[in-house]
Amino acid sequence: MERDATMQDVLDYVERHQRQYLADLTDFVRIPSVSALSEHAADVAACAEYVAGRLRAAGLTRADVMPTPGHPVVYGEWLGAPGKPTALVYGHYDVQPVDPIGLWDSPPFEATIRDGLLFGRGASDDKGQVLMHWAALEAHLKVRKALPVNVKVLVEGEEEVGSRNLEEFVAAHRDTLAADVVVVSDTDTFAPGLPSICYGLRGIAYFQIDVVGPTRDLHSGSYGGAVANPVEVLAKILAALKDEHGRIAIPGFYDDVRPITPEEKAEFDRLPFDEEEFRRETGAPALFGEEGYTTLERRWTRPTLDPNGIWGGFTGEGTKTVLPSRASAKVSCRLVPDQDPERISDLFESYVKSLCPPWATLTVTRMDGGKPSVTPLDHPATKAAARALEAGFGKRPVYTRAGGSIPIVATFQEVLGAPTVLMGIALPDDHAHAPNERLDLASFFAGIRSAAHLWEELAKG
Amino acid sequence: MERDATMQDVLDYVERHQRQYLADLTDFVRIPSVSALSEHAADVAACAEYVAGRLRAAGLTRADVMPTPGHPVVYGEWLGAPGKPTALVYGHYDVQPVDPIGLWDSPPFEATIRDGLLFGRGASDDKGQVLMHWAALEAHLKVRKALPVNVKVLVEGEEEVGSRNLEEFVAAHRDTLAADVVVVSDTDTFAPGLPSICYGLRGIAYFQIDVVGPTRDLHSGSYGGAVANPVEVLAKILAALKDEHGRIAIPGFYDDVRPITPEEKAEFDRLPFDEEEFRRETGAPALFGEEGYTTLERRWTRPTLDPNGIWGGFTGEGTKTVLPSRASAKVSCRLVPDQDPERISDLFESYVKSLCPPWATLTVTRMDGGKPSVTPLDHPATKAAARALEAGFGKRPVYTRAGGSIPIVATFQEVLGAPTVLMGIALPDDHAHAPNERLDLASFFAGIRSAAHLWEELAKG
Repeated sequence: MERDATMQDVLDYVERHQRQYLADLTDFVRIPSVSALSEHAADVAACAEYVAGRLRAAGLTRADVMPTPGHPVVYGEWLGAPGKPTALVYGHYDVQPVDPIGLWDSPPFEATIRDGLLFGRGASDDKGQVLMHWAALEAHLKVRKALPVNVKVLVEGEEEVGSRNLEEFVAAHRDTLAADVVVVSDTDTFAPGLPSICYGLRGIAYFQIDVVGPTRDLHSGSYGGAVANPVEVLAKILAALKDEHGRIAIPGFYDDVRPITPEEKAEFDRLPFDEEEFRRETGAPALFGEEGYTTLERRWTRPTLDPNGIWGGFTGEGTKTVLPSRASAKVSCRLVPDQDPERISDLFESYVKSLCPPWATLTVTRMDGGKPSVTPLDHPATKAAARALEAGFGKRPVYTRAGGSIPIVATFQEVLGAPTVLMGIALPDDHAHAPNERLDLASFFAGIRSAAHLWEELAKG
Repeated sequence: MERDATMQDVLDYVERHQRQYLADLTDFVRIPSVSALSEHAADVAACAEYVAGRLRAAGLTRADVMPTPGHPVVYGEWLGAPGKPTALVYGHYDVQPVDPIGLWDSPPFEATIRDGLLFGRGASDDKGQVLMHWAALEAHLKVRKALPVNVKVLVEGEEEVGSRNLEEFVAAHRDTLAADVVVVSDTDTFAPGLPSICYGLRGIAYFQIDVVGPTRDLHSGSYGGAVANPVEVLAKILAALKDEHGRIAIPGFYDDVRPITPEEKAEFDRLPFDEEEFRRETGAPALFGEEGYTTLERRWTRPTLDPNGIWGGFTGEGTKTVLPSRASAKVSCRLVPDQDPERISDLFESYVKSLCPPWATLTVTRMDGGKPSVTPLDHPATKAAARALEAGFGKRPVYTRAGGSIPIVATFQEVLGAPTVLMGIALPDDHAHAPNERLDLASFFAGIRSAAHLWEELAKG
């Protein structure tokens, strides 16, 4: 008599199929789905078909290749658990170009295993992590014929070229994609062997500032001293944006910053972070940031302001005695909850304009904007992911944030209204985007186990 | 019986030969001595020969084409007045290219007279002014068989390409060129119809500042807030170089500035200077400069500091979220007597370095440097030139300075130890370097008369 299959049976299935997963990953890596290069367009399309086929084989009730104006999206679903939560899993099947090819120790599209690492373009970013999910889904569906929750899977083909059609796709398929939580597996763990949940991302507000003085470049001898210099005006404006304590001087800028909780601070303080190693890695002679915060807090939980570029006047070799007509800078702010990019843009623009003297004219152009996102530590999805990772890795996960933005996370939040759990299992030294990209197989198998646990844990609510 | 020829006889000679001067200028303009274009090298050489021939015909006892590594120099002399002062006249026979040729109303190398203006490339800059001197010398030597002073003439062929071989030439022929005063006729009058003596030029000290933070461009999301931004560091340094009153903040910068005399101030205050017209011409929304000084004083008599260019990070279209590794600026100071470029460079460098925080490294590279020069209003040569211009134009000359530098003036001062009188008769609207360059013939003939008077006046001491 057949007993009901248990979670342990699912895990046993996963254990028995490790060789299969390596074979699958080898097939997956073999398809050179380089989204940036038009000569690989057919490969990208073939890769989408491959993913859809694997999702169907895993037992999803639907798995379609769906067109976009660029490379297609693969969408799959299993919705056989009415009344239970619905999770949307996100990943991407496209990969970075392989140049410089000469620096690869083995062919980039031939998966090669050495020392517990599987080398190949996309092994870590993001094919291994996509496979991790379909393997876990398959284990559940083969062993138990069902999933504990409803699952939707979205695997895009343009992540490496800026996900340029995804926002529109998500908006157009808002109902199809509706979910209670989004699970993104396209990030690193904090350190090797340390399962990590990245629960927060910073937002962004990006500007260009143009300062114009005279209508043409002037001779700095004939006019210098009588006509204000736009480079000088711009420098004084940029200098006034931050005080000597590293604090942004825009009035009201910090009004909506939500302080981190003592629990978050405690989590960060236990992370194995070597400040000197971090400094050495940047090459900067010393670190510098807002007074009163640790380096991790500055990078993850505090808003920042950085000029991204500046230009004006003569920039060639040698000397030219010009008083430039104009000077420009790109400046962006990284935002944290609950800062709103629109409100920050208003504050930025009005402060910058107030700094411009009457002898120059100034324009602020608003460019990219994106909201910060944080899924609280005590959110049920965060806690479910933590339990799943602990079960899969045999080690309590750490909680991290990232200083950057992942635009699709903001899209999911805004369009679907769903919180995101970032459950990546890549390692910081996986050489993503570089020659000899690789996937740590111990992390890979632990990731599949964690993914299998995830649906069980999410069902607990 | 022949009476001794008088100055009036010289002036009568000049008056009778006006038609000849126009024919000469037409010949001179016809030679397309464009120094910047290698296809005109033979024309430049031919032009040098033409000038030497005309100087010989004028009665100079020596007139040679002398080689340089570039285009030749023409040197002539008449040294028949032992015990009298020696003057060195400087001008140039090379001209600017004629592009855009389509904007010329008549062929650039065919002198064309319309409305009292002679149109042609080089008519004003500087062939007309060179011819003015040889015509006056010829008048003296034909009529009186002698000059009241010793005269040397140096006409170079590379002024329009930066006089790149002249400093070395002057140094190599220091004894040949030795003089008590240098007369340069390659400048504008302050306003049409207003004979002008430009008695001062500013010097210069030019720097490049390079600020380096991290050794590579960083992701502004992952690192922003924890690593100092070199663009921000550079902006704060540039901002600190001048206070809100337009005063340069480098300690000791003004120590050696010689205030202008009440007499100089009175001269400037009587100049027909329209501040609003000047502003309009620059296109700047308002003028700005050091508090407590007029616009002309700021341009001519006060030292300045201007960024000439700035660059760093991402400067393309759109957005890139980079925390730049480095940022650079070109910065130059215009100097006035008795500031020394070397001392100012020391002060600049040590102040700028003191402004660099420990989280960045900074390099200051010294580039061009040149001393300011002023020939006092009461210098005998200045007074002689003033009397000559008043006699030639029938109008008291105004005294001006220029905000820029003329490197050869500094060279004459440093190598020959001789003061310079800038006695230019070009008009500000002569379209030098532009299409339809022209020479005002009334100024031209007044200039020849003035040049004739000059030797007489210089002889008075």
